[in-house]
Amino acid sequence: MSAEDSARKFFNKKMTDRERAIFEGAVGLSSIYHQFIGTPISRDKDAIEALEEAIRRSTLLQPYKKDVKVKLNITGDYSKKDAYDYRSLEGRDFDVTIVTEYGDSRVTSCMRYIPEMKYVLMYVEKIEDTV
Amino acid sequence: MSAEDSARKFFNKKMTDRERAIFEGAVGLSSIYHQFIGTPISRDKDAIEALEEAIRRSTLLQPYKKDVKVKLNITGDYSKKDAYDYRSLEGRDFDVTIVTEYGDSRVTSCMRYIPEMKYVLMYVEKIEDTV
Amino acid sequence: MSAEDSARKFFNKKMTDRERAIFEGAVGLSSIYHQFIGTPISRDKDAIEALEEAIRRSTLLQPYKKDVKVKLNITGDYSKKDAYDYRSLEGRDFDVTIVTEYGDSRVTSCMRYIPEMKYVLMYVEKIEDTV
Amino acid sequence: MSAEDSARKFFNKKMTDRERAIFEGAVGLSSIYHQFIGTPISRDKDAIEALEEAIRRSTLLQPYKKDVKVKLNITGDYSKKDAYDYRSLEGRDFDVTIVTEYGDSRVTSCMRYIPEMKYVLMYVEKIEDTV
Repeated sequence: MSAEDSARKFFNKKMTDRERAIFEGAVGLSSIYHQFIGTPISRDKDAIEALEEAIRRSTLLQPYKKDVKVKLNITGDYSKKDAYDYRSLEGRDFDVTIVTEYGDSRVTSCMRYIPEMKYVLMYVEKIEDTV
Repeated sequence: MSAEDSARKFFNKKMTDRERAIFEGAVGLSSIYHQFIGTPISRDKDAIEALEEAIRRSTLLQPYKKDVKVKLNITGDYSKKDAYDYRSLEGRDFDVTIVTEYGDSRVTSCMRYIPEMKYVLMYVEKIEDTV
Repeated sequence: MSAEDSARKFFNKKMTDRERAIFEGAVGLSSIYHQFIGTPISRDKDAIEALEEAIRRSTLLQPYKKDVKVKLNITGDYSKKDAYDYRSLEGRDFDVTIVTEYGDSRVTSCMRYIPEMKYVLMYVEKIEDTV
Repeated sequence: MSAEDSARKFFNKKMTDRERAIFEGAVGLSSIYHQFIGTPISRDKDAIEALEEAIRRSTLLQPYKKDVKVKLNITGDYSKKDAYDYRSLEGRDFDVTIVTEYGDSRVTSCMRYIPEMKYVLMYVEKIEDTV
């Protein structure tokens, strides 16, 4: 895989495959957050699933993404009582896992709301060798 | 419908139902443009259809949207020759039609690239009475 | 002004100048909401003012915008106690007023959080003749 | 610095400070791309500088960002001949450098358009020890 990477020469020579897999995981998580936050959403299951699928498939197009799981936890009372009964997608709705692979390294990165931090954290959950 | 509109009192009293339908159409088109531009996209049909569906369903949640049609015209050569063979969704990819209804007025608004203007135009195509 | 509008022929012939000014106001408000929601923000005054100015200037570039006022009401406790002491711009932070003019019509459109609706409302506040 | 990091326990224990600095650089670059792409822009110098400053200041609020440089290369002919004489910010306009520091590691990450790849690349330019 590394042999085919036309971008490799732009990266610092000290960078390891593991570091590159970490880099690409972070790019993926941050792109999901800043791209889709603000999208109109409600408790409508079809709308939620359509958005989860669109996020998943678009993120998989980015370099070195091997697997993407997207769960949107839409809470709140949206009983469609009037025309304004929906809201915008917020960071805390995201429950995302991205697996990236580069060379012999596989990295699992996550994004989810951490209640004790009151913060939507992006972090690296797992680092593995694939050989 | 107007009777149930909890936001009506915030709008200027001179505003007609037809004007309100026009207003809501413009909100919808502009939300699609600025929300989804930048999303990773390629010639992958499944990814395109998933994004079209997500845009359609999320926009329908907004007030007074009756119908939303989204066609993404992804051109360019993306033969998946390497990891970087995709691009970001651009304004010129959009071919969107939104039908809004308020009171007795139905308005059809569109967004599409106009080659002679080199511009992605949002405009009102049709204005109808529903009675 | 109308004479120079290269897009006019794409709009429905029934559309009035007043309706066009309303349309362009809605495009502006919705573009601000969906473009900038999610931007990292804190109580840092310089960062807030820089973002307000960027929103204002970019929106003024859109067609028929005559004046744009942007106030971001950033509440919450951000005392920079650690690295995670900031948040994302939310819809309820916006207090925006846009004045659009087309032909002989001037329209003032607003976006702000309405507590009783628990909703960030875009609405038309004023409709005036300029002659 | 590491001692104060309330998020550290969520990261994989194998992760080095250098890897964390790389991770945070990628988060920053990708947030800029997906947040600000689509913003109305023209050759207007004041609008360009206001947006550069807003991007810079908002990104600096994110964890472990030590320095952010943003240059928007707006090309094209925008002589304000009519109301539609502007365009949306595109990925290829970005020339961004972010310096992140974590523990004893300092990492310089960049985002810029690479003509030979026809791609807006995010990459790690420099990896340093700060001790």
